[in-house]
Amino acid sequence: MKKETTHRLSELAKRVQGELWGPDLEVRGVSSLELAREEELSFVESRAHLKAARKTRARALLAPPELEGELPGEKSLILCKNVRAALARIAGLFWQPAHPAPGISPLAVIEEGAEIGERVSIGPWVYVGRGARIGRQSVLYPGVFVGAGAEIGERCVLYPYVVLYPGVKLSEGVVLHAGTVIGADGFGYAQEFGPEGLRHLKIPHFGTVEIGPEVEIGANSCVDRGTFGATRIGAGTKIDNLTQVGHNVEIGEGAIIVAQCGLGGHARLGRFVMMGGQVGVAPGAEIGEGARVAAKSGISGRIAPGEEVAGIPAIPARVWRKAAVAFARLPDMVKDWLKWKKSPGGKGENP
Amino acid sequence: MKKETTHRLSELAKRVQGELWGPDLEVRGVSSLELAREEELSFVESRAHLKAARKTRARALLAPPELEGELPGEKSLILCKNVRAALARIAGLFWQPAHPAPGISPLAVIEEGAEIGERVSIGPWVYVGRGARIGRQSVLYPGVFVGAGAEIGERCVLYPYVVLYPGVKLSEGVVLHAGTVIGADGFGYAQEFGPEGLRHLKIPHFGTVEIGPEVEIGANSCVDRGTFGATRIGAGTKIDNLTQVGHNVEIGEGAIIVAQCGLGGHARLGRFVMMGGQVGVAPGAEIGEGARVAAKSGISGRIAPGEEVAGIPAIPARVWRKAAVAFARLPDMVKDWLKWKKSPGGKGENP
Amino acid sequence: MKKETTHRLSELAKRVQGELWGPDLEVRGVSSLELAREEELSFVESRAHLKAARKTRARALLAPPELEGELPGEKSLILCKNVRAALARIAGLFWQPAHPAPGISPLAVIEEGAEIGERVSIGPWVYVGRGARIGRQSVLYPGVFVGAGAEIGERCVLYPYVVLYPGVKLSEGVVLHAGTVIGADGFGYAQEFGPEGLRHLKIPHFGTVEIGPEVEIGANSCVDRGTFGATRIGAGTKIDNLTQVGHNVEIGEGAIIVAQCGLGGHARLGRFVMMGGQVGVAPGAEIGEGARVAAKSGISGRIAPGEEVAGIPAIPARVWRKAAVAFARLPDMVKDWLKWKKSPGGKGENP
Repeated sequence: MKKETTHRLSELAKRVQGELWGPDLEVRGVSSLELAREEELSFVESRAHLKAARKTRARALLAPPELEGELPGEKSLILCKNVRAALARIAGLFWQPAHPAPGISPLAVIEEGAEIGERVSIGPWVYVGRGARIGRQSVLYPGVFVGAGAEIGERCVLYPYVVLYPGVKLSEGVVLHAGTVIGADGFGYAQEFGPEGLRHLKIPHFGTVEIGPEVEIGANSCVDRGTFGATRIGAGTKIDNLTQVGHNVEIGEGAIIVAQCGLGGHARLGRFVMMGGQVGVAPGAEIGEGARVAAKSGISGRIAPGEEVAGIPAIPARVWRKAAVAFARLPDMVKDWLKWKKSPGGKGENP
Repeated sequence: MKKETTHRLSELAKRVQGELWGPDLEVRGVSSLELAREEELSFVESRAHLKAARKTRARALLAPPELEGELPGEKSLILCKNVRAALARIAGLFWQPAHPAPGISPLAVIEEGAEIGERVSIGPWVYVGRGARIGRQSVLYPGVFVGAGAEIGERCVLYPYVVLYPGVKLSEGVVLHAGTVIGADGFGYAQEFGPEGLRHLKIPHFGTVEIGPEVEIGANSCVDRGTFGATRIGAGTKIDNLTQVGHNVEIGEGAIIVAQCGLGGHARLGRFVMMGGQVGVAPGAEIGEGARVAAKSGISGRIAPGEEVAGIPAIPARVWRKAAVAFARLPDMVKDWLKWKKSPGGKGENP
Repeated sequence: MKKETTHRLSELAKRVQGELWGPDLEVRGVSSLELAREEELSFVESRAHLKAARKTRARALLAPPELEGELPGEKSLILCKNVRAALARIAGLFWQPAHPAPGISPLAVIEEGAEIGERVSIGPWVYVGRGARIGRQSVLYPGVFVGAGAEIGERCVLYPYVVLYPGVKLSEGVVLHAGTVIGADGFGYAQEFGPEGLRHLKIPHFGTVEIGPEVEIGANSCVDRGTFGATRIGAGTKIDNLTQVGHNVEIGEGAIIVAQCGLGGHARLGRFVMMGGQVGVAPGAEIGEGARVAAKSGISGRIAPGEEVAGIPAIPARVWRKAAVAFARLPDMVKDWLKWKKSPGGKGENP
């Protein structure tokens, strides 16, 4: 929720280690170039936004130093190298969470032996199972389900209808958006041939899920519990909506996983991996630290640290980009190839 | 729910501007060729259904005029050009919604300052936040969550466990299927290198979602709120299950988006775009009015209005179809290519 | 939940028709090679696990007979051909479900005419619609929604926030994980051009969903109801999380469908089909009994029984694997092709 407050540009510049050029105005908020009002601060991330910057009503702009000369002279500027990070920091000053106040709704059900920390907010129709623990200042929106023995750290926010199966563990500051399910059984069956054909015997899932501090997971995503050990998501990792994280997956710290990715059982992602949307990772595949995976890729085997890959199966992205362009020429190539095959050279004859 | 009623074929023909051939029977319902009973009307969409039409028990058929001569002589026929549209209209006459009756369940929680219109149905365990507004004749199934200040137009239907985050807006006649989440934060972070490696700073989401009239969205889909402005879905657009619509996406009127598509932040889809299932659209991509995107395609950049595209990245569908066929010949082509490279021509020698 | 119990290896060997080698120890549980404690049984599925088997603390191992000579001599071994099936059976002995006890929560709403079998567990905030039927020993976790007239067989388990739309049918032993939605309307519209452009008329969905015995469906998946007839899932089929099953799809018995697959309307899958994650199946496509579809494939048309396919569109997997390798060589091939086109041979000239 937008907070009614004002800040001086000089103060904001200091906070983001930026340099103020022009009058030290007071601003009342942050917005995009198109939507900003006069008294708001806006931002220019790259040359592509210069045109919009000339039209914006905002009288103050965050911008990278190299664009200073190309921005309208009448604007106040805060120049800083990482505009996006500065934007995140400054926008945070104008933002306040609108979570429900602390307190336990009389409409919630708290089973025996559950431990609820101080200043926790528990909404109506929240279920907290036996022996579950909820850390201080956490917020459970209406309809959150916390299975027996599950643990929620401090300052977590669980939006409506988040489901934690029994025994899963969230560290502090974890945010789970509406409808996300943590700790359902992994997809593990043993195949057996019987008199009636193939049968799938369920492998019980004794494991759990452990989610590190400051992880955020989008809406309607799923993280399955491990078969024996835990499925683990490292500190500060951010996962978008509708993502599938299979049993015993291990994701390092600070990874970024865009919507609708699917990580097969036992897949391992190093720290700081960045993954576009709709990527599929095969069971047991490994992706090294800092690797970048283009949207819609299919990963199997092993991706080296720092590599940039694309395609199904994924290959180095610079090769993939050329191959993808070449793909459109395949019909013509095939025609010529067939012609060539009939030629003396194609028949292996001496010309 | 099926309605117990009968209609004369002549009446139905008139309603769909069709032409009745044969006896003016009374029919009690509509069904597929395989399942229809004698007293039901069935339908033939194309020549592919002629065989089934000869076996159907239905004594009356909807069919396109050009098939008239090939259909069994003893059936009554309603001939009309758009059989599928006629089917939708006629089936609607035999259908009645089975929504819960108007009234507010004593098990719902309505916060202060919420406005509830006439003849609204609010089921048990529905939460309506402060200042939310619900238009007349809307139906909120059990467990719907309406965040503070959210607005729901008239005649909307929200199935169980739909979640509206604070401030989102639905126009009239919007239908949201179970588990769909509207208005969660977009996936926006600023990357910053600190002493411990990459950090992701959350960019607060000040924006909202605006959904136009008569939009229908399937089950477990997600529409994220805008960072500053709104994520917008135009009137009459229909979106299938498990679809991801990112922050600040704009979808024009009358689009069709099949299940499991993912639209990245700031993507723009023109009116009447039709998109097969599992398509991915990169952040900021634009798809022109009336363009058609084949299932599983990956869109980046710009697709011209009316174009038909396929592939990752998407190329004109007619090229893609040929290239996809050629793809299977690649192994043989590579063999010959390697052979050719060793030949005098491949080595650049004079033959 | 892990059960506190012990079993003798001789007893376990008998149960799985395996052969015991070494001392007849008592074991207290089952675990992976890495996590097992001394008194637990672990398992070796293939040669790839031999290294871990040498380091495990477990004093007893399940293993295939052909690895016997390569395993540490001091371990007790249960040798059996299908290690995974034996693991499933034995793990089941150490596992007990931790479902809520039978009984109907006073916080549930049971509408008139609903029939509840013996020893059913109905949690808080469960809604059971008019005329719905719930078979004996079934478990409905908090927040399950059962639409009017829906039928649930014996021994089913519905995790939190599962939604059954009216009239759908589950056979006995069906397990539905949290957030799964059964019976929402299929995505069926008729297109019509009006004065304002394309319009999508909703085709009412008179059909239902029928789910066979012992089917398990993961979290946040969707199975749409049929337009007229039923969407059907055969006995023993297992479906992972976030999967879309369209209207009138028919899936045979014993199929395996990994996460995030999407099956278009009227698709037909034979018995024992196995499908990797993120596969898309076009409306009306047919996949024959026992066919195997690689992850991320796109299926249209018809796949023969027993075939193994991959790619978009899917081709025989052995061809696809070679073509996928060849794809990375396309940029070089195109270069040579363009060179060749300029050569006398490419110009069709006599050399």
